[in-house]
Amino acid sequence: MGLDSAAIKPHERLGKYLASDMAAVNELIRDRMASKHAPRIPEVTAHLVEAGGKRLRPMLTLASARLCGYDGPFHVHLAATVEFIHTATLLHDDVVDESAQRRGRPTANLLWDNKSSVLVGDYLFSRSFQLMVETGSIRVLDILANASATIAEGEVLQLTAAQDLATTEEIYLQVVRGKTAALFSAATQVGGVIAKVDPAVEQALYDYGDALGICFQIVDDLLDYGGDTKATGKNVGDDFRERKLTLPVIKAVARADAAERDFWKRTIEKGKQEDGDLEHALDLLAKHNAMEDARADALGWAATAKAALENLPEHELREMLRDLADYVVARIS
Amino acid sequence: MGLDSAAIKPHERLGKYLASDMAAVNELIRDRMASKHAPRIPEVTAHLVEAGGKRLRPMLTLASARLCGYDGPFHVHLAATVEFIHTATLLHDDVVDESAQRRGRPTANLLWDNKSSVLVGDYLFSRSFQLMVETGSIRVLDILANASATIAEGEVLQLTAAQDLATTEEIYLQVVRGKTAALFSAATQVGGVIAKVDPAVEQALYDYGDALGICFQIVDDLLDYGGDTKATGKNVGDDFRERKLTLPVIKAVARADAAERDFWKRTIEKGKQEDGDLEHALDLLAKHNAMEDARADALGWAATAKAALENLPEHELREMLRDLADYVVARIS
Repeated sequence: MGLDSAAIKPHERLGKYLASDMAAVNELIRDRMASKHAPRIPEVTAHLVEAGGKRLRPMLTLASARLCGYDGPFHVHLAATVEFIHTATLLHDDVVDESAQRRGRPTANLLWDNKSSVLVGDYLFSRSFQLMVETGSIRVLDILANASATIAEGEVLQLTAAQDLATTEEIYLQVVRGKTAALFSAATQVGGVIAKVDPAVEQALYDYGDALGICFQIVDDLLDYGGDTKATGKNVGDDFRERKLTLPVIKAVARADAAERDFWKRTIEKGKQEDGDLEHALDLLAKHNAMEDARADALGWAATAKAALENLPEHELREMLRDLADYVVARIS
Repeated sequence: MGLDSAAIKPHERLGKYLASDMAAVNELIRDRMASKHAPRIPEVTAHLVEAGGKRLRPMLTLASARLCGYDGPFHVHLAATVEFIHTATLLHDDVVDESAQRRGRPTANLLWDNKSSVLVGDYLFSRSFQLMVETGSIRVLDILANASATIAEGEVLQLTAAQDLATTEEIYLQVVRGKTAALFSAATQVGGVIAKVDPAVEQALYDYGDALGICFQIVDDLLDYGGDTKATGKNVGDDFRERKLTLPVIKAVARADAAERDFWKRTIEKGKQEDGDLEHALDLLAKHNAMEDARADALGWAATAKAALENLPEHELREMLRDLADYVVARIS
């Protein structure tokens, strides 16, 4: 099943099931991104928030809370919190990466300026902070504070690990936990925490989000070397041009002979890239089965995610989360 | 009394009185700015945190808590929180302002890069968030979340108000509350909140911090047009060159004749500045008593700050806070 399958996709099924909750989340997001004093804020955020991302992270929070039987109002606050943190991270990422495109549209730093992206990101982060305080749960705040620190640390680690051929799969995993999995796992865990689940269920929700997030990021990194530009909104080879050490390259570097090592040194470490280098990089990835092996890793994480679900109550939403884990990898099959 | 007065200054007296608390704050700051995975983080933060700022904000928190009789451990966490938020804001400010100098030293964005400043700022903000969660007080979190939102909103407002001659004193006050007073008032208020003071005392602490912060920023903006570079670590005329509408200029613009208005339009709105423009701007500020009137406003805010102290318990620290309010304005006398 590819991205263009005619069948209804798991995240769309989740979206339908959670439609009224998601409507409340969207209303809260619109309400809280307003600013009486600084109209630049809603301009920039609307560009991003309404760009039609899949809203996967808030859906994970809603699904976790609902499948644990939560019927209070605060899953909506937490879902909006998670989306605000995500959006703030995207704004800062685009400044750091000097990106010109996001989800197939020009980035905010291109449309406005880096200043607006930095400050509006800060604003969204502080708004997310207000939203979670409204839940009145110190436990929730603790989880989200720790996730925020992991995200920020992972971003800095990625910055310093970039261009460094000594980057191992272990460091890659730390970066991935920071840039993606920390927010996924916090999103699922807090859904359980407000439903006051027991520790085993909370742990299962965390494990599911963590494994799904890692799987998601590995697939994203794979698509960068072989995806469909229209579907991903990214250009093939962006990571190569930005000299990022992602899983396929780390595997190929580990298996490189002397000449190949020189190639990676020149293109990634020294950044001296020429016409034809991307094609040669793709050949080396193929030669060393790097794409296939990374895909196997992604499948392993999807299996871990599904195994974690066994510890959750039986529920229609649990089945959708299972299908979602399969679907994340199916994007590259 | 000027900056170079031989007498011991109020913030130094506060520092002496609170020396053991401040030592605990400094230790906590060093401990929490460490990062096992990303050594870039302590490099950047050490540059700033150890640059020898006056640590005014954490001292305000410690002083508030102590003068309200607090004897638990969490005033140290909150003081470190406030310093981390301040440092994160400085890192992001320097990216936004494209500054090359801070406190007379090169800025982090110059020594490393904008990316590091953005991401390490995010890291410090998330670390501050963890520190405040440790206090276990939702009320404290609420105050600091609201302060963070006010700070971020004020920064965006400053961005859009810059270069706009229609900026009023009212908008200036909003910007100043965001960029400075919100953190001062949160710093003093949370010191009282953890000491479980009654609402009138909490309000007085807030009012003191708010007025002191506004006073502090007005003085800072005045010094930009007439300060001693060595003492401020800034160059005279930085705000003019960056086309910032600060209080003296707002007053001079309001009183400008047609020719003067054209001058402000050209230099601030259009940013077409020539040799001699700064000198002419200073002449116009003098002609319209703009500096003197802004100084009178600062004195008014110092008086408001001192009046708020009347509602606090009698205490040696209260006298130091009173002297501090006088001292802030004395910097320009």
